[in-house]
Amino acid sequence: MDNQEKIVRLVTSCPDQVGIVAAVSQFISEKQGWLLESNYFADSETKQFFMRNAIKKDSLDVSLDEFRNAFALVAEKYSMHWYLRDTSQRQKVVLLASHASHCLADILHRWHSEELDCEISCVISNHENLRSMVEWHEIPFYFVPVEKSNKRPAFNEMANIIDQHEADTIVLARFMQIIPSDMCEKYMGRMINIHHSFLPSFIGANPYQKAYERGVKLVGATSHYVTGDLDEGPIIEQDVIRVGHRHHKEDLVRLGRDVEKAVLARALRNHLEDRVLIHGHKTVVFD
Amino acid sequence: MDNQEKIVRLVTSCPDQVGIVAAVSQFISEKQGWLLESNYFADSETKQFFMRNAIKKDSLDVSLDEFRNAFALVAEKYSMHWYLRDTSQRQKVVLLASHASHCLADILHRWHSEELDCEISCVISNHENLRSMVEWHEIPFYFVPVEKSNKRPAFNEMANIIDQHEADTIVLARFMQIIPSDMCEKYMGRMINIHHSFLPSFIGANPYQKAYERGVKLVGATSHYVTGDLDEGPIIEQDVIRVGHRHHKEDLVRLGRDVEKAVLARALRNHLEDRVLIHGHKTVVFD
Amino acid sequence: MDNQEKIVRLVTSCPDQVGIVAAVSQFISEKQGWLLESNYFADSETKQFFMRNAIKKDSLDVSLDEFRNAFALVAEKYSMHWYLRDTSQRQKVVLLASHASHCLADILHRWHSEELDCEISCVISNHENLRSMVEWHEIPFYFVPVEKSNKRPAFNEMANIIDQHEADTIVLARFMQIIPSDMCEKYMGRMINIHHSFLPSFIGANPYQKAYERGVKLVGATSHYVTGDLDEGPIIEQDVIRVGHRHHKEDLVRLGRDVEKAVLARALRNHLEDRVLIHGHKTVVFD
Amino acid sequence: MDNQEKIVRLVTSCPDQVGIVAAVSQFISEKQGWLLESNYFADSETKQFFMRNAIKKDSLDVSLDEFRNAFALVAEKYSMHWYLRDTSQRQKVVLLASHASHCLADILHRWHSEELDCEISCVISNHENLRSMVEWHEIPFYFVPVEKSNKRPAFNEMANIIDQHEADTIVLARFMQIIPSDMCEKYMGRMINIHHSFLPSFIGANPYQKAYERGVKLVGATSHYVTGDLDEGPIIEQDVIRVGHRHHKEDLVRLGRDVEKAVLARALRNHLEDRVLIHGHKTVVFD
Repeated sequence: MDNQEKIVRLVTSCPDQVGIVAAVSQFISEKQGWLLESNYFADSETKQFFMRNAIKKDSLDVSLDEFRNAFALVAEKYSMHWYLRDTSQRQKVVLLASHASHCLADILHRWHSEELDCEISCVISNHENLRSMVEWHEIPFYFVPVEKSNKRPAFNEMANIIDQHEADTIVLARFMQIIPSDMCEKYMGRMINIHHSFLPSFIGANPYQKAYERGVKLVGATSHYVTGDLDEGPIIEQDVIRVGHRHHKEDLVRLGRDVEKAVLARALRNHLEDRVLIHGHKTVVFD
Repeated sequence: MDNQEKIVRLVTSCPDQVGIVAAVSQFISEKQGWLLESNYFADSETKQFFMRNAIKKDSLDVSLDEFRNAFALVAEKYSMHWYLRDTSQRQKVVLLASHASHCLADILHRWHSEELDCEISCVISNHENLRSMVEWHEIPFYFVPVEKSNKRPAFNEMANIIDQHEADTIVLARFMQIIPSDMCEKYMGRMINIHHSFLPSFIGANPYQKAYERGVKLVGATSHYVTGDLDEGPIIEQDVIRVGHRHHKEDLVRLGRDVEKAVLARALRNHLEDRVLIHGHKTVVFD
Repeated sequence: MDNQEKIVRLVTSCPDQVGIVAAVSQFISEKQGWLLESNYFADSETKQFFMRNAIKKDSLDVSLDEFRNAFALVAEKYSMHWYLRDTSQRQKVVLLASHASHCLADILHRWHSEELDCEISCVISNHENLRSMVEWHEIPFYFVPVEKSNKRPAFNEMANIIDQHEADTIVLARFMQIIPSDMCEKYMGRMINIHHSFLPSFIGANPYQKAYERGVKLVGATSHYVTGDLDEGPIIEQDVIRVGHRHHKEDLVRLGRDVEKAVLARALRNHLEDRVLIHGHKTVVFD
Repeated sequence: MDNQEKIVRLVTSCPDQVGIVAAVSQFISEKQGWLLESNYFADSETKQFFMRNAIKKDSLDVSLDEFRNAFALVAEKYSMHWYLRDTSQRQKVVLLASHASHCLADILHRWHSEELDCEISCVISNHENLRSMVEWHEIPFYFVPVEKSNKRPAFNEMANIIDQHEADTIVLARFMQIIPSDMCEKYMGRMINIHHSFLPSFIGANPYQKAYERGVKLVGATSHYVTGDLDEGPIIEQDVIRVGHRHHKEDLVRLGRDVEKAVLARALRNHLEDRVLIHGHKTVVFD
C-alpha cells in the first residue's frame, strides 16, 4: 500500500519513441529517487506511451520544486503531459448522492477505516435522508434540492460548493441526476460515476428493469469518468454477478448493489493512487 | 451426473395454481417413481409454473407408454406443455461450424471423453479445414460451401442433412453465417448458438473489435436459442473474462475463445439434460 | 425476495424413500397452500432427503397451529426432522465483534437498508471502539472484556446476554476469541462464523500471513457453523479474490475484508431464509 | 501478443538499489532498442528486484551476441541473474501425461491453433490410450510404463527422452506419478505441474474426494513448478469453480477438469513468455 510512507508519483504520457524510459529513469536516479513501483504501457495502435513512477519522497536529494523545474526540460523534449503528486497532501474528495445509501456508506466506511487515502470534504445530496449517516462521520452535508422544472440553479449551487471545497475529485455515488454538459467539461477526468449496468448494455435509465426483461444471466456495474455523452465516458472498472430465473427485478437491484459499491470503490482507489490514465475515450489502469 | 443410471425426465410447464406439485408428485409416487432430482419454479409475474423431475427408470412399475397415457390426463387438467424423456435413447446432435476450431474441438473432446450424454450425428461446415479433426473422431463431415450471391441452396442442403440425421439438437459452434428465418422457425428451441459477446452488448458482427474500441474491462460470450431476431433469442448461459489496456484486439479474441467454449459447453449440457425451459424470450435453467 | 409478503416455510429432512414429495405437497395442497418456492435434495450417498417449501401465509385455510398439529402425523410417518417458520416473527440476531469493523458495519448497513429480514437484538464486543457505530443504529452495545488469564466469566456473561435477548441466531462478525466448546454445543446450528481464509487452507491464526508466505494467487473467506472443532464446522459459503506478487500482507488483509463481508452476508441471508440445512459436517444450501 | 513480430526478452533479478531501471533502460536505449513492454517489481520485504523487458528485435543496432557481451558488464555491476531470450528460436516443450486426456488435449489444441509459441517435441506417457490423439497432431508419442515395484528405470528412460529432445520446458499434464527428487532438482524452474486442488488445501492424493468430504463450496486447481517437496513448489497460477451440495464427487472431478486445463494453459503461456520469475518458493508473474 502506498500510504505506508510518503511517496511522490510522477505520471506522464507522450508519443512513443526509443529512450523515454531511459530518460525518465535516468532523471529519477540522478535525484537519488528510490523506485517503489514503475508502470509502463505503450499503445501499439495510437503510438502513445504512458508511465507511472512511485518514488520514496525522502530518498530524493532535491526539493519537489527543484524536481519539477528540472523535469520540465525532460518533459518538453518528449512532448509529455505530466504531473508530480505529493501524497503528503491528501486529495480532497466531494461525494454526490441521492436517496440510495449503499455506495455512499461503503465509501464512508472505507475512508473511516483509513483504507482510502483522501479527505472527504463534504457530501452533497438532493435528498435529506442520508444526512445523519454523513454527519455521524463528522463530514459536512449539503442538501441541494433539484427542481424538475428548473435544475440550473441547483447545479450552480453544487458547483459552488465543490469549488469552495477545492475538490480534486468528485464522486457520483449513485447520484440520480444528469450532470449538465458544461459541468462535465469543467471537471473532466476528475468526476467519477457508477452506472448500474455492464456498459454498453442497458445505457440510460432503469438498467435492472431492462436486464430483467432481457433475461441476462449476469448483471454488472461500470465506473467511468463523466463526459458530456451520457454513460459513454472512459471506463475505469467493471464487474458482474451471476443471476438466474429465480431472481425478480428487486433481486437484481439488491445483488447489483454489491457489485456497484465494489466497482466504485476499486475505481476510486485506483484514481486516488494515480493509477488511471485517460487515453482518448478509454483508460490505462496500472493496477 | 444423470448418466450413471437410466433415467426418465418429466418436464412440464403450465399456468400456476394450488396443487400442481401435489398432483404431479402424487402421480409419480403412485407409479413407484423414485425421484432423483426435482426442480420447480413459479414466475410471480407471468404466473407460469415450470417443473422438471428426474426419475429412476427401473423404479417405475409401469411402461413408459403407460406412464405417458396416464399422465396425459393430469396434464390436460392443468393445461400443461410437457414431455417425458427416456435417456436410454441418446439425443442426436448435429454441429455446424465454419473456420474457427475451438468450440468444435471442445465439444468433440467432451463427447469423446463421455462427458456429454448424446450422439454427435455429423458436422456440417462451409469450410474444409476442420474435416480431419472431425473424421479422427469417426464422425461424418459434410462440406457445404455457402456462396455469397446465392445462399439459399446451401441452407436447403444443410436442412436436408440435419433432417436426414433426425437431429434433436443443432449447435452453431461458431458458425459464421446468418440462419434464414424459416430455418430458425423450424428448429425453434432446438438450435443453440454461441455469440462472442456479453449480449446485449455488441450485437451483430465484430463484437471484439467493438469491445476493444469501447475499452470495456470484461469481455464475454452468450449462448442462446436461435430465433428469427438476430442475437435476440432466449439466453441460456453467459460468462465474462477480465481484460485490460494491455490487451490488443487479438488478445480479446484469444481470451474470448476460452469463454465462448466454456459457455457453449455448459449451455449444451444443460439443454441435453432437459434443464433449460423456454419462457417467452427468456429461459428457466434448473442447474 | 421473501419479505414482500408474509410467508411460512416448512423445512424438513428425513431418510429418502418413494412418496415423500407427494405426501408433503399433497398435505400443503389440501390446506390450500400456495407454493412460492420449493426445493428438494436427495443425497444419493447418505440416502437422506431435504426439503424446503415457502408458502403464502394467507393462502392457507388453517391456522399455523392446526397446520403444525396435522403435519406432525406426516412427519412421524417419514421420521422427519422439521420446523415451520412464520416469517411474520422476525428472527432475533445477536452479533459478536472484536476490533475490526468491516463485517459488523456491512451487516448493520444491510439491516438498516431493510435488506436483512431480522432484528438485531444487540452487539457484544470485547473492545469499546465500535460502540458509537452500533449505537448510531440504535442497537444496544455490550462491552465484555476478555481477560487472557480468565476467560470463563466473560463467556458466561456473553451467554447470559445472548439468552436474555432470546437470540435465534448468533453471528461472529470477526470476533477474535475462541468460543468454549460447551457454548459451541449450546448454540449448535445457530452460531455462524466468518473465517478469513479459504478453508481448509490456513486453519487457525494469521491466515493472511500464511497465505502471503505460501504465495497463493487467490485469498478467500469461509462462513461456517461453529462447532467444538476449530474451523471445522459445516461450511455455508466461500469465496475468493485474486492477488499477486505486488500485494503485501497488508494488501491481502485489505482485499480479504471485501470477501469476508460478502461471504458472511450471503451466509447470514441464506441462514435467515431457512435455506441452509445441516447435513452431518456439510450443508445443503437451497439458493 | 508477443508473437506478432520477432522479440527479444531481457529478464533480470538482483538486489534492489537506486538506479537499476535507469541503467538497464539506458543500456537498451543506447542499442536503439524499442520497448514493447516493460515490467518491474521490487519486493520490499526481501529487497529483491525483478525486471522483464520485451524489445523489438529488429530495432537493435547490435547483434544479440554483442548485446549479451555488453550487458554482462551492467549485470555484473548489479549482481544480476539474467538471460536474453530470442523468440525466433521457439522453446521445446515435452509433455508428460497418464490416462486423463483433458489437459493434454487442451494444450495440443492451443498449440495446433498457434496460440502457444513453442514446439511440442514429444509426449511421454505411462499409458497407451492417448497415442492416437497425439499422433494425429504429428507429434512423437513415447510409451514408458512405470512398474510399481521398480520405477527407477522408467524415470531414467523419461529423462533420457527429455534430454534427447533438448527440452526447455517439461509439462506434467495430469501425469499421475511422483517425480523422483533428483529429477525435480535437474529440471528446477523448467518443470510445470497441475495439481487438482486449490493448494495448500488437499495436498497429496485424491483431492476431489477430500473436497467432497469436507463440503467446500469451491474447488480449484493449482499450477506450480515442481520441486522435491510434493505439491509445495512455487505457485504460478490458481483458480476455482463454484460447487454445491448437488454435486457428487464425480461432478467435482468433471467441473474441476475445466479449471485444471485453464489454469495449466495460463501458467504455461506465461512461462513461455518469460513472465514467471521464481522468487524463493514464490513467483513473480508479470501478466
